[in-house]
Amino acid sequence: MLGPRVWSSVRQGLSRALSSTVGGWASGEGRKVDISGIYPPVTTPFTATAEVDYGKLEENLHKLGTFPFRGFVVQGSNGEFPFLTSSERLEVVSRVRQALPRDKLLLAGSGCESTQATVEMTVSMAQVGADAAMVVTPCYYHGRMNSAALIHHYTKVADLSPIPVVLYSVPANTGLDLPVDAAVTLSQHPNIVGIKDSGGDVTRIGLIVHKTRRQDFQVLAGSAGFLLASYAVGAVGGVCALANVLGAQVCQLERLCLTGQWEDAQKLQHRLIEPNTAVTQRFGIPGLKKTMDWFGYYGGPCRAPLRELSAPQEEALRLDFTSNGWL
Amino acid sequence: MLGPRVWSSVRQGLSRALSSTVGGWASGEGRKVDISGIYPPVTTPFTATAEVDYGKLEENLHKLGTFPFRGFVVQGSNGEFPFLTSSERLEVVSRVRQALPRDKLLLAGSGCESTQATVEMTVSMAQVGADAAMVVTPCYYHGRMNSAALIHHYTKVADLSPIPVVLYSVPANTGLDLPVDAAVTLSQHPNIVGIKDSGGDVTRIGLIVHKTRRQDFQVLAGSAGFLLASYAVGAVGGVCALANVLGAQVCQLERLCLTGQWEDAQKLQHRLIEPNTAVTQRFGIPGLKKTMDWFGYYGGPCRAPLRELSAPQEEALRLDFTSNGWL
Amino acid sequence: MLGPRVWSSVRQGLSRALSSTVGGWASGEGRKVDISGIYPPVTTPFTATAEVDYGKLEENLHKLGTFPFRGFVVQGSNGEFPFLTSSERLEVVSRVRQALPRDKLLLAGSGCESTQATVEMTVSMAQVGADAAMVVTPCYYHGRMNSAALIHHYTKVADLSPIPVVLYSVPANTGLDLPVDAAVTLSQHPNIVGIKDSGGDVTRIGLIVHKTRRQDFQVLAGSAGFLLASYAVGAVGGVCALANVLGAQVCQLERLCLTGQWEDAQKLQHRLIEPNTAVTQRFGIPGLKKTMDWFGYYGGPCRAPLRELSAPQEEALRLDFTSNGWL
Amino acid sequence: MLGPRVWSSVRQGLSRALSSTVGGWASGEGRKVDISGIYPPVTTPFTATAEVDYGKLEENLHKLGTFPFRGFVVQGSNGEFPFLTSSERLEVVSRVRQALPRDKLLLAGSGCESTQATVEMTVSMAQVGADAAMVVTPCYYHGRMNSAALIHHYTKVADLSPIPVVLYSVPANTGLDLPVDAAVTLSQHPNIVGIKDSGGDVTRIGLIVHKTRRQDFQVLAGSAGFLLASYAVGAVGGVCALANVLGAQVCQLERLCLTGQWEDAQKLQHRLIEPNTAVTQRFGIPGLKKTMDWFGYYGGPCRAPLRELSAPQEEALRLDFTSNGWL
Repeated sequence: MLGPRVWSSVRQGLSRALSSTVGGWASGEGRKVDISGIYPPVTTPFTATAEVDYGKLEENLHKLGTFPFRGFVVQGSNGEFPFLTSSERLEVVSRVRQALPRDKLLLAGSGCESTQATVEMTVSMAQVGADAAMVVTPCYYHGRMNSAALIHHYTKVADLSPIPVVLYSVPANTGLDLPVDAAVTLSQHPNIVGIKDSGGDVTRIGLIVHKTRRQDFQVLAGSAGFLLASYAVGAVGGVCALANVLGAQVCQLERLCLTGQWEDAQKLQHRLIEPNTAVTQRFGIPGLKKTMDWFGYYGGPCRAPLRELSAPQEEALRLDFTSNGWL
Repeated sequence: MLGPRVWSSVRQGLSRALSSTVGGWASGEGRKVDISGIYPPVTTPFTATAEVDYGKLEENLHKLGTFPFRGFVVQGSNGEFPFLTSSERLEVVSRVRQALPRDKLLLAGSGCESTQATVEMTVSMAQVGADAAMVVTPCYYHGRMNSAALIHHYTKVADLSPIPVVLYSVPANTGLDLPVDAAVTLSQHPNIVGIKDSGGDVTRIGLIVHKTRRQDFQVLAGSAGFLLASYAVGAVGGVCALANVLGAQVCQLERLCLTGQWEDAQKLQHRLIEPNTAVTQRFGIPGLKKTMDWFGYYGGPCRAPLRELSAPQEEALRLDFTSNGWL
Repeated sequence: MLGPRVWSSVRQGLSRALSSTVGGWASGEGRKVDISGIYPPVTTPFTATAEVDYGKLEENLHKLGTFPFRGFVVQGSNGEFPFLTSSERLEVVSRVRQALPRDKLLLAGSGCESTQATVEMTVSMAQVGADAAMVVTPCYYHGRMNSAALIHHYTKVADLSPIPVVLYSVPANTGLDLPVDAAVTLSQHPNIVGIKDSGGDVTRIGLIVHKTRRQDFQVLAGSAGFLLASYAVGAVGGVCALANVLGAQVCQLERLCLTGQWEDAQKLQHRLIEPNTAVTQRFGIPGLKKTMDWFGYYGGPCRAPLRELSAPQEEALRLDFTSNGWL
Repeated sequence: MLGPRVWSSVRQGLSRALSSTVGGWASGEGRKVDISGIYPPVTTPFTATAEVDYGKLEENLHKLGTFPFRGFVVQGSNGEFPFLTSSERLEVVSRVRQALPRDKLLLAGSGCESTQATVEMTVSMAQVGADAAMVVTPCYYHGRMNSAALIHHYTKVADLSPIPVVLYSVPANTGLDLPVDAAVTLSQHPNIVGIKDSGGDVTRIGLIVHKTRRQDFQVLAGSAGFLLASYAVGAVGGVCALANVLGAQVCQLERLCLTGQWEDAQKLQHRLIEPNTAVTQRFGIPGLKKTMDWFGYYGGPCRAPLRELSAPQEEALRLDFTSNGWL
């Protein structure tokens, strides 16, 4: 439960949100926030008894603070947000806000299943200091989440959010790809600034960039495995689980892409694919956290029902890093 | 939010749960609860402003009370449970408990994403009067929900639940079929009494019945479309969305199966397939609620992001009932 | 059962077919062939050098001839038909015809990718003695095989086939489920007599039976795993790979279903599920052929690229039979 | 049917194949053929009565000859090869060979379901003048086509092929993605020179490039929709259905990528995505052929069961070209 100190900070966050962050576009100046750059989707550290370990969280952020990230995603899929209570979700964001320098963007995952809950969580996230809300598609009833339903959902959220909204499509978890036509329609909303696309379909990413080119709308790759290719087709950054352990390298890949050093970029990208797949699809958050332990961060356990890796899995994970020269 | 009256009832429920319901198997008498029979998975009625309409809920239950159901499932997928707050989930169960005669079983959906939250919700469901907990597979990280993870999850829940646990596999929503080997292992837990299987794979249902034949373990079909076939391979009942509108017919189908009148059963089953598909896969909860309106119940709106049917969808829905002689 | 009268009409049909193409049934006798019953889909035996071993084929048929099968399917998916040349396909059917008593139906798989090739193969199959053609859905371009395309395809084939046509839907191989509406439309064709449905979706099977009830149209289950359930919803038989090794048992299951001994049927069905899954989905044709070797038939090698089972696979296969009391 | 003239050319082709084409790597010089560049996968023109129209084929090739393609793919998926007889497949390749200048590579699709048939077709393709064989994964039994089976299959084909072999993975048709580890193993075969990957997963393409970097092995993108991104991660060309109608533009995109003009490349790539999707996934070969008619080539009808586009589909197809400024 959020204590008084936190809620005080919530109130401060609210007034800050209403006066400053939103002000930009709401006042008609028409400049949406620029979300280009690299973001680690931070993990939520837990103690051995599965409590959120805020101290370790801050330590991780402190170490990650040395890299030229644009900001941090808090409570993306890698943050185990479905395992946190509402209070924990807000407290984590609040703590990250306090730990971050002001120039780092804090994108907070605020998606819930119902539109109403998503609105409330988004408003609360703004109050505790999020600069933008990253809103995953609702998914339990994905069979009925057609374009009309999703457009209605996101429009409502964006209408009522005091902070800019980033769409978030992650079919591996949700069973649902936000349809391109829905993304294009939503790109016209003044409070929707971009999309994080984790599906890895670069044809689709290129098409979204193309069809939203007349909007102030930015596309972030949702994984380091297709970061170079995404830059090549017009994405402006990435939310990369791998940046939690190879932060320097992912930022280096960004720099190579932005400065047109494609040959070096390609070589670096190649060496990141297997490690990236290992900490995402292949071994998931347990793999990411185990790797964090290896790289000097605090990974620690996941909440159940996620399970620790077995010894052979751990070995395979390690091989994906050693064979590419990272361990 | 649950008011004082409810929480008082929670406490009473707790003591009742600890003294009686659990006692059965915990004391070593070895008789698990018998869950055989037909259950409508009740919908959650909402007002025009999307508040839970407890009055309409009670009215619906009153009308449904005239059929020989074994009991009611509250907060299965058709209950829009992902759209309810924890308080609402408990309050709904509490109200249903109060509205039901004691001889009707109340199976309450208590699944959450984390094991811990599921345990807490299950305990709370018991406290507000649920006779058994129906626990859906966690799904956001379904890519990592292998047998080991699911066995661990359900074992923990069943260990700590004061009421019997029913496994719940609904791949259309979760992207995940509870593996047969996991179901078989879990069937040996003294506090796990059965599974509701909504996947419609009757080979699988037969295999689960077969491989759990030495356990006190029962299988319920998760939909009226394959109810007859499920009885034929050894299921003992069904949780059928269609029973919310064609309660007499679904109970009649049960009776024909139980009394071996397979020819008549087949004819009736045939006429129920299209209506059933219409209120489940084809048009989902909006279709079910619309049909409830037609049949004299309160359907009403869904919470967003679920949307009302369009006029052509409504017509197609109606046709699925009229062409089979039900409207 | 095909009587002499039918065969007379077949012969007339054949000669007429060669002159005018459409035949026997068009003359208004109006009785379609009755395909109800159990069929093993025979495997194609190969020598060590991958030649068709016609001698072994005949030996297998001789042994299988002791069971009360309605007939045999030649060149279903288990016949490795995609690996045979056109000549081999016809020669195999011709040999089977010669080896079979006249009262056994011979259903020959005649599906090809193009409509034209399928027509030609179907006519040829008739010429070498097939009683009916089992026509699998074309599949390479399954993304474009909608109802309209499939209705057109099958109508053409049925129009030009001198023998009755059985639709064949096997999504595990083709990636394509023949849509129910297409099956219903096609059931009205005077030369289409039924469907073999291998998808295992018993709701769908029930619906097809229901919606074709006014036609002379029969449904065969495509696997022994859901044979009892299929009978329960109105199927009239099955094409069962398992019948190649447990022929007596599959016929016994048929008898129990037809005589309404559902309890015994259920027990038997249960014990057949794992063996059936083993020789179909789990280990495929290599598993089926290996099991044939165990049961006194000639299984032998498959044509490449199908591979022999590994030793651990073989052990797992055996366990699926021993644990159910069949070995 | 191949006439005497053709078979004479076959025999010449055979001796040519054995003396020259193979010589390269077989003699130990170690230079595999360089397949980098752009290839249209040519369609097979049919007359109104569904005969192969060789005259129109030559006319199309003549028109396509004005673009700087590296060569042509004959009997890729767009060539409707599953609808052609073996004789037609060879005759088409033979005609294309005769119509092409010697410096244009002819990649001939020679995949069949069985290994043996694929070997024979590959040898025959070499005899009629193919420079390399593009071998699609067998697919009917895709459930059993694991890495071991596919490695065995391709090794056999490559061992016996007189011309270099290009692997071909097209999951939209085959339901099967050639596993990366199989591709990597096969890249070491002296007669396997590359892969055409039509799956569109650029992470996978990058990984294949990376893991085969020490081999003489090249990757071609299988579609124009992800051509730029594929170049960015190390592919060396593409087999692009779209090049049948926008040949100049696809070649221009290649040039922009090869000369590092990524900004212009991106703009061009963007405008090609929708037209490309239209003539592949969205409307398939009927869409491609219809578009060919618009662009001055002969498209004509497909063989059944492929169907013509409906009027609304045709309109949608046209819009995908007009809205991007190509019509």
